[in-house]
Amino acid sequence: MTAFDFSQALAPGLPPPAAKWTGFAKYNFIGGHNDSGLLPVEALVAAANAVLKREGATLATYGLDSGPQGYRPLREFLASKLERTAGIACTADEILIVSGSLQALDLVNGILLARGDTVIIEQDTYQGALTRLARLGVRAVGIPLDRDGMRMDALAAALAELKNRGVRPKYIYTVPTVQNPTGTILSEARRIELLRLAGEYGVAIFEDDCYSDLVWDGSRPPALYAMSRNGGVIHIGSFSKSIAPALRVGYIVAPWDVLSRMLPLKTDAGSGALEQMVLGEFCPAHFDAHQPALRRGLRKKLDTLMDALNEQFGTAAEFDDPKGGIFLWVKLPDVVDTQRLYGAALAAGVAVNPGVEWSTDAAHGKSRMRLCFANPSPEAIRAGVAALAEVCRREFGVPDRIANVQQRTRT
Amino acid sequence: MTAFDFSQALAPGLPPPAAKWTGFAKYNFIGGHNDSGLLPVEALVAAANAVLKREGATLATYGLDSGPQGYRPLREFLASKLERTAGIACTADEILIVSGSLQALDLVNGILLARGDTVIIEQDTYQGALTRLARLGVRAVGIPLDRDGMRMDALAAALAELKNRGVRPKYIYTVPTVQNPTGTILSEARRIELLRLAGEYGVAIFEDDCYSDLVWDGSRPPALYAMSRNGGVIHIGSFSKSIAPALRVGYIVAPWDVLSRMLPLKTDAGSGALEQMVLGEFCPAHFDAHQPALRRGLRKKLDTLMDALNEQFGTAAEFDDPKGGIFLWVKLPDVVDTQRLYGAALAAGVAVNPGVEWSTDAAHGKSRMRLCFANPSPEAIRAGVAALAEVCRREFGVPDRIANVQQRTRT
Repeated sequence: MTAFDFSQALAPGLPPPAAKWTGFAKYNFIGGHNDSGLLPVEALVAAANAVLKREGATLATYGLDSGPQGYRPLREFLASKLERTAGIACTADEILIVSGSLQALDLVNGILLARGDTVIIEQDTYQGALTRLARLGVRAVGIPLDRDGMRMDALAAALAELKNRGVRPKYIYTVPTVQNPTGTILSEARRIELLRLAGEYGVAIFEDDCYSDLVWDGSRPPALYAMSRNGGVIHIGSFSKSIAPALRVGYIVAPWDVLSRMLPLKTDAGSGALEQMVLGEFCPAHFDAHQPALRRGLRKKLDTLMDALNEQFGTAAEFDDPKGGIFLWVKLPDVVDTQRLYGAALAAGVAVNPGVEWSTDAAHGKSRMRLCFANPSPEAIRAGVAALAEVCRREFGVPDRIANVQQRTRT
Repeated sequence: MTAFDFSQALAPGLPPPAAKWTGFAKYNFIGGHNDSGLLPVEALVAAANAVLKREGATLATYGLDSGPQGYRPLREFLASKLERTAGIACTADEILIVSGSLQALDLVNGILLARGDTVIIEQDTYQGALTRLARLGVRAVGIPLDRDGMRMDALAAALAELKNRGVRPKYIYTVPTVQNPTGTILSEARRIELLRLAGEYGVAIFEDDCYSDLVWDGSRPPALYAMSRNGGVIHIGSFSKSIAPALRVGYIVAPWDVLSRMLPLKTDAGSGALEQMVLGEFCPAHFDAHQPALRRGLRKKLDTLMDALNEQFGTAAEFDDPKGGIFLWVKLPDVVDTQRLYGAALAAGVAVNPGVEWSTDAAHGKSRMRLCFANPSPEAIRAGVAALAEVCRREFGVPDRIANVQQRTRT
């Protein structure tokens, strides 16, 4: 009997097949991984113990005893935490727990977007947002950023230009508080202006706040959701960066009118309950205390990374000191094509995110790269940056050896 | 400022909004819930303790140390378990852990189906499979079942008829081992015939095995995946019925050629890791011992349900004793419209699944209903069936009071 040929049965337009996973790169500067040494393992074990002993039998029902919006104690923690830190006044009924903020992206897109729609997005932005929009056949209009986040003059011009053409964008997607990948924080003045423009043009705001717990000094501007006077904001967040990414727990904050349209698209019979239960138990007692420790550890790694870049790349690597988070957005000399660098570096055991994947503007992204510093050890950060500089020099002639030696003699 | 109106921004064709969750019905005969008293809570607590203490720090990386296919120890347990129980020879590399078998349905559909396609499906089948196909714009051709599962004469006729019209179905979806909702097991002779027909017509088989651990006597025919000689089968399963539904852990078994097409559609950055870790720790030691205890408990509840139906409905309720599982497929007199019964019963605190939602044939489903018996207590089963009979008598005149009394005097 001839073997069945699945390839003839495949739907048209599928993405290329995945490559087999062969482990993380030796020097891994990609992915939103966290620092394994900073994970609050003992407290998570204690939380798992307590909550499973007390409520483990509720795992027998889909949604536990909390229904499709997710474990109620976790939603109640979030309501109080969001009020305390982000100024958001909402109840547990306006929160939907989801399987990581990626499911949040899918649900927001699911209720709002149709093929041919237009959205506004930060020019440098999360790759997963861009790939989703591309798959949905939605046009992403990129707005440039500066050190205070999305530029409001550029946003105003884009909205006016779209309106002239009869196009109302479905939303303005923004990561206003520790932007991915630039690490900027949208200033409060700009938040006011963003809300004003969105109101004027009748456009919803899609606020992705998943890094907002990682502002170095622990203080953050109020969320757009909190500042909005017309209620036209959907707010999403995650425990991936503040606790642990593998848990896959995120959330959406929106009025019931909006959540009630998302729930029928959430056809997964609920997100993983054990994660929700453990976080619901852990967070009220430990979340607040965990964040400063986590931030201190991450800040130290960022310093290590910036020192290593200065040492190895000299002036060839330009970057701003990010206001928080787990990544650094680096500009290399124009001669460097980071997509090509990516391939050569990976062969040398160094994984980086090429900028072209994190920007709506290929020319702007071409010589930029994103470096995630949370996961590698300080030693790996230093050795990885040295290996990357070596590859970059071999492939593109920069950084030159002189600058490197000059830097080194200074340390 | 006027409030933002999200309704003007919604994508066209959304499902109706969800109603607010108000708790489970008092007598809850819907949903694949399990028996909370049969949940192995202590062993799960111990597993969580052990695995988190040993490997908790790996939660800092997406996919733990196992990559996008899921926690490797769990995949290794599955490979050995599937060989032992279902005769499937596969390695951990041919298994993809997913967020419940619902994500498995989405991924299989995602790689194979396009709008306008046709699939073959059991006439009485899982509602979630039918609603997915409807949303995808895929035509579902239903094949009637009898006590040995899908009827092969009807399948042969449907395949021939489709071929005459130039239609090659994308797959034959079947729940062959404890079928949902009929509780039948496809006989081994029919499995051979099904595989022969699928091979002859060049159609893939989509085998949903999520109830196969719940065969009363613990013995099951080999999986279609194991029996296939051309490799044209995709096999999915779940821990929802064998351990706990709220965990949301399922799996797909398929050749790498097929899995490699699914992985790029699994854009969730991995399924919940804590659930996978706990199951990976629990299962090698406890899975096998847990199943017989669970089956004995479920069988007892089924007996309670069948007794209650006999007592309350007499001959008005027809059903076959299912070969395993958590539900009973009940035929009421033709005069009963179970969709209408559903509404009236819910008002009286009794939730049932109307048959029309679980069948490709509305006329066939009209007077049928699915009753899940795993979750309610024996007392709730008896009281719920009595309340249901009362509503049914009031609405449709059956069961008549005489039969009821006659039955009662016999007990």
